[in-house]
Amino acid sequence: MSVTEIFDVRTTTRIETIDITSLVRSAIRKSGIDGGLACVFCPHTTAGLTIQENSDPKVKTDLAEHLGKVVPHDGGYVSTEANSDAHIKSSLIGASLTLIIDAGKPVLGTWQALYFCEFDGPRSRRVMVKVIAG
Amino acid sequence: MSVTEIFDVRTTTRIETIDITSLVRSAIRKSGIDGGLACVFCPHTTAGLTIQENSDPKVKTDLAEHLGKVVPHDGGYVSTEANSDAHIKSSLIGASLTLIIDAGKPVLGTWQALYFCEFDGPRSRRVMVKVIAG
Amino acid sequence: MSVTEIFDVRTTTRIETIDITSLVRSAIRKSGIDGGLACVFCPHTTAGLTIQENSDPKVKTDLAEHLGKVVPHDGGYVSTEANSDAHIKSSLIGASLTLIIDAGKPVLGTWQALYFCEFDGPRSRRVMVKVIAG
Repeated sequence: MSVTEIFDVRTTTRIETIDITSLVRSAIRKSGIDGGLACVFCPHTTAGLTIQENSDPKVKTDLAEHLGKVVPHDGGYVSTEANSDAHIKSSLIGASLTLIIDAGKPVLGTWQALYFCEFDGPRSRRVMVKVIAG
Repeated sequence: MSVTEIFDVRTTTRIETIDITSLVRSAIRKSGIDGGLACVFCPHTTAGLTIQENSDPKVKTDLAEHLGKVVPHDGGYVSTEANSDAHIKSSLIGASLTLIIDAGKPVLGTWQALYFCEFDGPRSRRVMVKVIAG
Repeated sequence: MSVTEIFDVRTTTRIETIDITSLVRSAIRKSGIDGGLACVFCPHTTAGLTIQENSDPKVKTDLAEHLGKVVPHDGGYVSTEANSDAHIKSSLIGASLTLIIDAGKPVLGTWQALYFCEFDGPRSRRVMVKVIAG
């Protein structure tokens, strides 16, 4: 039986997009599973997971900045916790990714990387990875 | 072999966010599967599923109201069905969640709950849960 | 062991929403798996996958056009590649869908179809499908 791998992500600013591809690859390799599916899961409600370009770093800047326009920090929210924008972004980006595993590796396009999206940092965060064979 | 569990969700207003965590937990327990993955699926195109905070109820109010600003009910749409906003929100929030199952339970963060998002109620809705071992 | 099915999608304009339901159904049937989960995966960072209505074609027009208002092509982005809008839409819509398989078919609601969303075409695209039994 495979176990769930957990790794830590330490964020350093309020809004941050961190490449976790090598951590996910390593968790999948550690499972010893050659073919199947993996779930990468973010157990936080003010952060999310996305797949984006690994080449031009301006793409992740544009993603973070445009999300901040669509869902502004000060958006006249009723919650007094001052992080409703982070919760809304989390629901839009999503907390869970499903990946295809082939030859012990996640199937990703040439330009794809996996990103942890911090929307209310800095914080200590965690990401879980579960791989099942099939 | 595990079967797909189906449960009913009855919504009472046009826009509604309903906590379905205990229903999903119960479907997972019923499967008898200790470790694996679960897919929680919404078979409707004017509703969706999200993971959000279970503590401050104002968070779900802010999510619903801000989504209504980003995708207004009367947005000058070409469809004459008067629910294009609901379809667009459904694609933004998503119709499918993948969860990690450990010790017979979904792995969720302390503040996470699973929500059914009604965008065009009131209606009788359904949610499917499938658990596979691994 | 099941293998990953790959099929080609040829897009013909910059923004396009293509019904891939029958291609996904065929990949699932080819797997010979009766019950389980399927992951449908888009290996591109300027495209995505969504589940939407299969009946009124105006719904996909409204989705594409409203996404273009929320994330405009010329949004003052820092990347000079002129397709930051496509990357942002890809993260909002998502690159991966998880489906429940029952009786050799994906469990879908009456009005649901699977769509490939091109945000930066025309291009030659690919979609992967992996089915696991359980």
